[in-house]
Amino acid sequence: MALLVMKFGGTSVATVDKIRNVAAHVKREADAGNRCAVVVSAMAGQTNQLVQWVKEAGSVDDEREYDAVVSSGEQVTAGLLATVLRSIGVKARSWQGWQVPIRTDEVHGSARIAGIGSDELLAGLESGEVGVIAGFQGISPEGRITTLGRGGSDTSAVAVAAAIKADQCDIYTDVDGIYTTDPRMVPRARRLDKISYEEMLEMASLGAKVLQTRSVQMAMVHGVRLQVRSSFDPPEAVPAFQLGDGTVAGTLVCHEDEKVEQRVVSGIAYAKDEAKVTLVNVADKPGVAAGVFGRLADANINVDMIVQNVSDDGRFTDLTFTVLDSDLEKVLAVLKDAKAEIGYKELNGSTDIAKVSVIGVGMRSHAGVAAQTFAALAEKGINIEAISTSEIKISVLIDAAYAELAVRTLHTLFGLDAN
Amino acid sequence: MALLVMKFGGTSVATVDKIRNVAAHVKREADAGNRCAVVVSAMAGQTNQLVQWVKEAGSVDDEREYDAVVSSGEQVTAGLLATVLRSIGVKARSWQGWQVPIRTDEVHGSARIAGIGSDELLAGLESGEVGVIAGFQGISPEGRITTLGRGGSDTSAVAVAAAIKADQCDIYTDVDGIYTTDPRMVPRARRLDKISYEEMLEMASLGAKVLQTRSVQMAMVHGVRLQVRSSFDPPEAVPAFQLGDGTVAGTLVCHEDEKVEQRVVSGIAYAKDEAKVTLVNVADKPGVAAGVFGRLADANINVDMIVQNVSDDGRFTDLTFTVLDSDLEKVLAVLKDAKAEIGYKELNGSTDIAKVSVIGVGMRSHAGVAAQTFAALAEKGINIEAISTSEIKISVLIDAAYAELAVRTLHTLFGLDAN
Repeated sequence: MALLVMKFGGTSVATVDKIRNVAAHVKREADAGNRCAVVVSAMAGQTNQLVQWVKEAGSVDDEREYDAVVSSGEQVTAGLLATVLRSIGVKARSWQGWQVPIRTDEVHGSARIAGIGSDELLAGLESGEVGVIAGFQGISPEGRITTLGRGGSDTSAVAVAAAIKADQCDIYTDVDGIYTTDPRMVPRARRLDKISYEEMLEMASLGAKVLQTRSVQMAMVHGVRLQVRSSFDPPEAVPAFQLGDGTVAGTLVCHEDEKVEQRVVSGIAYAKDEAKVTLVNVADKPGVAAGVFGRLADANINVDMIVQNVSDDGRFTDLTFTVLDSDLEKVLAVLKDAKAEIGYKELNGSTDIAKVSVIGVGMRSHAGVAAQTFAALAEKGINIEAISTSEIKISVLIDAAYAELAVRTLHTLFGLDAN
Repeated sequence: MALLVMKFGGTSVATVDKIRNVAAHVKREADAGNRCAVVVSAMAGQTNQLVQWVKEAGSVDDEREYDAVVSSGEQVTAGLLATVLRSIGVKARSWQGWQVPIRTDEVHGSARIAGIGSDELLAGLESGEVGVIAGFQGISPEGRITTLGRGGSDTSAVAVAAAIKADQCDIYTDVDGIYTTDPRMVPRARRLDKISYEEMLEMASLGAKVLQTRSVQMAMVHGVRLQVRSSFDPPEAVPAFQLGDGTVAGTLVCHEDEKVEQRVVSGIAYAKDEAKVTLVNVADKPGVAAGVFGRLADANINVDMIVQNVSDDGRFTDLTFTVLDSDLEKVLAVLKDAKAEIGYKELNGSTDIAKVSVIGVGMRSHAGVAAQTFAALAEKGINIEAISTSEIKISVLIDAAYAELAVRTLHTLFGLDAN
């Protein structure tokens, strides 16, 4: 008998019929004797409707009201799933964030979980009652409803799994696992059986949308075994979870040492939602970069890659960096306003770029991945505009038109193509 | 400076634009220095959608899940109204039922309010912050969300008014007050300036849909001054509430002695949602009626009027009673099943009836209202099939085809026609 957390996202609970399908997955596990805590998102589309209403209602100067409105979507799904479960003979009840309670800080709209009071929840689970928890929600120290930010239900699921020391946390979604790259772009992409937390973190922050970064971090810190799997698998056709069985129904996110297959590179990620900003002819002297990035930080803008060209004459240089393309207009406005203080000749912004990343924990012990990457891209005539690296990834910024070519080239180069 | 409860129903908050109109009403009162607790229903249509989803989800064997789902509509409106208020410069916050808390019993789906913890709410109001309270919701002793049943937001409003000892409770709705009868049926119906709790109670339970019966009872018990008024009045064109001012913007429901104009009859109500059931030739002996109505009570069916004809020969009689027409099928099924035990010759059901009622506290001191009523109806050739009376009302059951004629006749007879 295992303790299991199962999480279902918005597309998996988009209609009452889909909720029935979710219930069949839960019933399979409950019938096998597993204790199940189920975390649900809002029905797809509901959260957008709620956000739309709040926006119409006026400028949101108080995120507490935003949270009160937007959290109601998960409240509905939790009650509906509990009702469906009971109607098919599975003992179940719904839990709102404040009922568990899932205690958070007061940063409404993107609260962080501070702790979970899991005694009552656990008592219910141990009595054989499925606990259906509204994801995304928490309660602040002053007793107001908080939300964890978009995709927060993944975080709810992992936090609950950590709090009740679950044997596994299954994230059911509309894809059947983590792939070596986006299968819509590269048909020969392979599904990974296992991936390390670190690799998954890089994948998530570099464009793979399957798991929310914070949930992966939390799983890594607390050692939660996380499995990404499809909610569209026929519920009765897949086996129930069994402790120590080791069967993987999708992709298991786990510690590095649990991975059997040790490839150098695990996946190729890409992101097209960045924009490139170039300041031409800024003074090549201390404090200029600080002035630029200090202003952007004040405007709450995250900067990703930064490249400063070597200057020809030692007096002027070009400064290039990337931001989310949704921030581009704001960035240009901020820098235009500060033109006199910063001092530059030209300001250029472009959204026509892509970031392609090679990811793998194997890089730690294998030199030459960067060199191989650059050589392969050069051979295809792809110009690299910026580079950023970490211990387990190499990201390059290229012209958006070459994104697919680059991803396919690197996918083949590092032996990731399916047979 | 007064303490005011303002309640807005579903049609008054049906869209964000309508919520803006509601906010303007609240702003008028807040700007005049009044402390405002505002109770809101769900956006019109939302509750039906939520109920529909629950029904699709399966047989509701656990009303706690029904309540968790259905209460979310009010949560949304409370957050939206607070947001709109803040955006127009009125300090405001939302309160969920469990946050106030509005403590109820455990009868989910139609819970009764047991008490309100109003300290924190009052502190907010006294600091000049408008409290926007989600109507319809409560919290059970075990910490689950409860709902007060359809129209429960009226009850929420009155309960809050009683708990904080509000100077007045204004029920804003889609009509501008209580009329002597339904103006859609009788164009010469007059709006009443004041009506007593007792009369309002009879009106509400006899077919006038403006206020929920329970809310009127509660207002009567706690002496809450209740005003029914229109949310579609231009918010800036009406004066703000002023203590001791006495201006009535709609109809004031108050103690009898506060009414100035003391007519014998205050209004004529009618209901077409009843059905008549007749058992022909039942034994005229003790225990038969008990057997019939005991079975209906077991099936949770409310019986309204009951008439037992005098039998010709002392052995058999006809038993006639009315139920809600939505219950008719169930009633017929129950009685068919019990035909052998009860013993009757024929069972007839008809929905083609109407109940017309004459209401007025003045009847207490004026004899002859019943006689006048019967004579007037007889003169128009209207046959009375059953009669039921109380201290302040006379109800007659007639053929549905004559409902309008009967209402108009009695409206004129008792001097209620507008000039």
